[in-house]
Amino acid sequence: MTRFKLVIEYDGGPFVGWQKQQNGPSIQAALEAAIRQFSGEEVTVTGGGRTDTGVHALGQVAHIDLTRTIAVDKLREAINAQLRPAPVAIISAEEVSEDFHARFSATSRRYLYRILSRRAPPTIEKGRVWWKSRGLDSDAMHEAGQALLGYHDFSSFRASECQASTPLKTLTHLAVTRHGDEVWLEVSARSFLHNQVRIITGTLCQVGLGRWPISAVGDALAARDRKAAGPTAPPGGLYLVAIQYTD
Amino acid sequence: MTRFKLVIEYDGGPFVGWQKQQNGPSIQAALEAAIRQFSGEEVTVTGGGRTDTGVHALGQVAHIDLTRTIAVDKLREAINAQLRPAPVAIISAEEVSEDFHARFSATSRRYLYRILSRRAPPTIEKGRVWWKSRGLDSDAMHEAGQALLGYHDFSSFRASECQASTPLKTLTHLAVTRHGDEVWLEVSARSFLHNQVRIITGTLCQVGLGRWPISAVGDALAARDRKAAGPTAPPGGLYLVAIQYTD
Repeated sequence: MTRFKLVIEYDGGPFVGWQKQQNGPSIQAALEAAIRQFSGEEVTVTGGGRTDTGVHALGQVAHIDLTRTIAVDKLREAINAQLRPAPVAIISAEEVSEDFHARFSATSRRYLYRILSRRAPPTIEKGRVWWKSRGLDSDAMHEAGQALLGYHDFSSFRASECQASTPLKTLTHLAVTRHGDEVWLEVSARSFLHNQVRIITGTLCQVGLGRWPISAVGDALAARDRKAAGPTAPPGGLYLVAIQYTD
Repeated sequence: MTRFKLVIEYDGGPFVGWQKQQNGPSIQAALEAAIRQFSGEEVTVTGGGRTDTGVHALGQVAHIDLTRTIAVDKLREAINAQLRPAPVAIISAEEVSEDFHARFSATSRRYLYRILSRRAPPTIEKGRVWWKSRGLDSDAMHEAGQALLGYHDFSSFRASECQASTPLKTLTHLAVTRHGDEVWLEVSARSFLHNQVRIITGTLCQVGLGRWPISAVGDALAARDRKAAGPTAPPGGLYLVAIQYTD
């Protein structure tokens, strides 16, 4: 039995999310089917981060165990060949030790949220950005977001259906930057609550639009109440960028 | 009668191209329908550059003549409202004098061709890049491309169905640069022959892949024969970036 680490990119648009579900196609099921087709082995693909319906990944990580011996380049090519035409691809495959676990060994997860801030709606980037037709003050958003850094009770930034045992999380990085017509929010933490990045985005947009003062974001955090934060930003602008591991 | 200049962005994927045709939806027809719906006027939308099936635009330019008086911001919003959900949007509208002509007043057109150069196929960027699974030497492509700069007979870089009266064109800018996994070809000229940018791209890729020496591109140009150049790159990687006018 050999364990492999896979780095995976996907367009979340046509999927119900990473995780296998009864109600539609998932990325996990697409990968398991592709691996079964080329290897004949029934494998479980264990993901490092669960992405919701419509959320994209540039660097999702998963692990699989295979009985057969195969070179990592051949493994990547074989899975990619079976995946087509689904918008899912293995970027890299590598052999890892049996104590590597895509989910539990992760030390940091990085997300990007892309907002298109201009009068005209998106065309080429439709489904890949959140469109805000009014101007956004990205500097104010960045400043307001700094109140969220560190170890906090993030109950205000947690979906009601979140199943995490605790709302305590440590946000290690938050930066809001402008790239032409786009405003990017980049955040890192060891792990996140359900919808945490999307609620942070929706909340910082209240500041960016001038509806909330900068100080209101810290107040929303202190309230420990979902109703105190802003709306949940839609899934199409969210990207799981990378997952880091100790070695 | 007031003439307006429109700057237009679109995803070319679902269209048969810019120009109105019997065989499917065109961007021109989508715009004319949208303008008719909000204004009740039958207008012709005159484009500055014809893009083929599947070719995108970040900055197509067109002009229209309207009988009614309307503020440019209202015009842009009204057309965009009618266009949805088609992936076409007016980025800006401006009032121009009656001697402005989107096609004939243009002094320069700029195109971008995006190539994804990596082992894994595109997912999020599917239909927006040309995928080359083998490595590309972008420096060699850039150097080879410099032979095409200036005033030349571009018969080798012209589709057989090209209807231009002469194959003589002046290429004013050509640069090949790497951006992470992508190789970008950027070219400018007053005007281009049919498929000229896509044939230049396909030809420079022969150099980038190491199949052709750098000097072969100048030889292909000198041959004045379509068969002497490389293949035509697919439409999905091509973007009409901008059209310039004297004032």
